[in-house]
Amino acid sequence: MSLHEFEVIARYFSQTFPHRADVIFGVGDDAALCVAPNGMQLAIAIDTLVAGVHFPPETDPKDIGYKALAVNLSDMAAMGATPAWMTLALTCPPDTHENWLAHFSYGLRELAECYQVSLIGGDTTTGPLTITIQITGFVPAQMALHRHGAQPGDGIYVTGTLGDAGLGLASIQQQLHLPVLARHQVESRLNRPTPRLREGQALREIASSAIDISDGLVADLGHILAASQVGASIYLNQLPLSTILREQLSLEAAWQLALSAGDDYELCFTVPQHQESALSKALVTGSYTRIGMIETLPGLRCVNASGQPFIPKSKGYQHSFNLNPDDPDN
Amino acid sequence: MSLHEFEVIARYFSQTFPHRADVIFGVGDDAALCVAPNGMQLAIAIDTLVAGVHFPPETDPKDIGYKALAVNLSDMAAMGATPAWMTLALTCPPDTHENWLAHFSYGLRELAECYQVSLIGGDTTTGPLTITIQITGFVPAQMALHRHGAQPGDGIYVTGTLGDAGLGLASIQQQLHLPVLARHQVESRLNRPTPRLREGQALREIASSAIDISDGLVADLGHILAASQVGASIYLNQLPLSTILREQLSLEAAWQLALSAGDDYELCFTVPQHQESALSKALVTGSYTRIGMIETLPGLRCVNASGQPFIPKSKGYQHSFNLNPDDPDN
Repeated sequence: MSLHEFEVIARYFSQTFPHRADVIFGVGDDAALCVAPNGMQLAIAIDTLVAGVHFPPETDPKDIGYKALAVNLSDMAAMGATPAWMTLALTCPPDTHENWLAHFSYGLRELAECYQVSLIGGDTTTGPLTITIQITGFVPAQMALHRHGAQPGDGIYVTGTLGDAGLGLASIQQQLHLPVLARHQVESRLNRPTPRLREGQALREIASSAIDISDGLVADLGHILAASQVGASIYLNQLPLSTILREQLSLEAAWQLALSAGDDYELCFTVPQHQESALSKALVTGSYTRIGMIETLPGLRCVNASGQPFIPKSKGYQHSFNLNPDDPDN
Repeated sequence: MSLHEFEVIARYFSQTFPHRADVIFGVGDDAALCVAPNGMQLAIAIDTLVAGVHFPPETDPKDIGYKALAVNLSDMAAMGATPAWMTLALTCPPDTHENWLAHFSYGLRELAECYQVSLIGGDTTTGPLTITIQITGFVPAQMALHRHGAQPGDGIYVTGTLGDAGLGLASIQQQLHLPVLARHQVESRLNRPTPRLREGQALREIASSAIDISDGLVADLGHILAASQVGASIYLNQLPLSTILREQLSLEAAWQLALSAGDDYELCFTVPQHQESALSKALVTGSYTRIGMIETLPGLRCVNASGQPFIPKSKGYQHSFNLNPDDPDN
C-alpha cells in the first residue's frame, strides 16, 4: 500500500487545523486566499528543520511537528506579531510510515490550535526529511519590534531561563546522565520550545529592540548589537538558570550553555530606562530577567561575579558552507 | 575558507533583488514586514524542489534558481494573481561552492526581476539540497481563478504547447538523441518554464476554472474535474504540439508526453460558451488552444482523430509514500 501525495494532504493536513474567518480559501487549490486586516502590517518568516542537522532522525514525530511550528512562532514573537497563517513544505523519504505522518501532523496541530494558526497550504515531496514552515502574522503599523533600536544605557533582558535546551541536547547525545524527571524537562525544552508570543506582543511599545534566541545568547544578542551599532556587557551572575541546570552542572558549565547553546527560543530584548516601570507592568514578575546593559563601546563583554571577563568557548551555532579549495572561481 | 550562513545571506540574497515600496522591512530581521494593498486578497503558495527528485543534482544552478521561482509564479498564474513577495528556504550541503550560490542567486534574481518580486526573507541551512520558495501575491477580491468552477458545456483550453518539458527530460536522461538546437529548446522548456502570469490575470473574469500543468495534463485536469464534480473529453488531434515534438516522436508518443509528462507549467482552464469572444479578445491568438469539453459524465475520456478512446500509459507524476508493511499501526 502506498499513500499518494494528495491523499497525504487530504488525510493529515486539510480539515483538522484551526479555521479562521480571514482565510477565504485554504488547502486544495494552486494557492490559498487570505484577507489581511486593515491597519496591520504583515510579518512573514520562514524556517527549515533538517533531519540530522536540527534534530536526530529518530525524534518523536509529534515533537518534530510541534517544533517546526514553534521556531516560526518564535520569529513572530520577536517581531511583536500575532501569527495567523502557515504553509508547510514537507519533504520525506518514500518509506515514511503513515504513522509518522499522523504523529507529525498531531504535534503540528497541537501548537497550531494553541495560537489559532491556520494551515492554508503546502507541498508534499519525497526526499531527505526536511520541514519548512512559512508563517504570516499581523502587527500594527509602526509597532513591530526590530533588532536595530538598542541604545547605550538600555537594559538587556531575557525571558525564561537559558541553557536548558542545550542541556537537553547534551542529554539526548548522552554526554551526561540526568535523573529521569530532569531529563524529561530539559529534553522537552529542546523539543517543545515555548514561543514567547504574549511577551513579544506586550513589549511592542516598550522594548527598543528584540530577537529570539535560536543560535545562543551571544550569537543572537550579537545581531542586536550589530544592527544597532552598539556594544554591551552581560553580567553572568544575573543569567537566569533553571534549578536543573544549576544542580547538574558547575556554574561555569552552566554559563557556557546559557551563553552559547541554541534552541532556547526565549526572547532577548532591550528596554530604555524610562520604560522600566512600563516593562514591570507589561510582563509578569519572574518571567523575565535583566542580564546586562547596552554600551557605546563596540563588542560584547561577559563579566563574572568578581568583575572579571569570561570568554565563552563557543559563540553559538551557525550553518557553514565550506568553499571548495580546488574551485578556480574562489 | 568557509562562508557562514549570515555571510551567504548578505552576499547573495540581500541587496540585489527588486525593491518594492510595499516591503517595509526585508531581509535582516526575525521576519519581514509588508503592507497588502487595499481591496486585494492575498494569494499564498509554497513549492519545493529536491535534488535528485525534481532535478538532477548536476543541473546548472542558474536554472535551479530560475525554476524554483518559476514553479511558484506558475501557481500565482493559475489563481490569476500578481506575485509580489517571496521567501526562500535554501538547504544545501556543507561543501557547496560559493560559485554555485552565486549562480543559483543569479538565476533566481533573473526571473524575480522580470516580475518585480522581492526576496523578503529566508532561511539558509545545511543538509541535502532542497529549495523551498513561498510566494505571496495579490488578486482582487472575488476574482481569483479556482479549480472548482468548471460546468458541463465549458470548453477546455491550454496555453502554449504540451509535452516539450517531458521531451527535455527524456533528452537529459539520454532516452533519445536530439539535434543540438532541438535539445537546447526542450531542455530549456524543462529547466526554465515560463509562468503564464499575463494569461492567468487576463482570464480572471473569463475562465470558469484554471490550474497550472505541473504533473501532466491528465493529472492536473483531473483536479479540475474532481473539484468541479464533472467529467470531460479531450480530443487528441487538438492537443497543441511543438514542431520539435512532432518531428522527433511518433504521433502516439507525442500524445503520451502531452497528456502525462509534467513540468510544462502551461495553464489548463475552462471557459463557458458565452465567454468565448471575451477569451479571444483577452488572449493573443495562437497562445492558447481549445482541446476538449467539460461533460456531465464523470471521468476523463481521451479521444483520437477517428473517435476511438486512447488510454495514456501514465497518469502523471505523484510523490508516493510507501507504508511500511511491518508497521503494526498500518
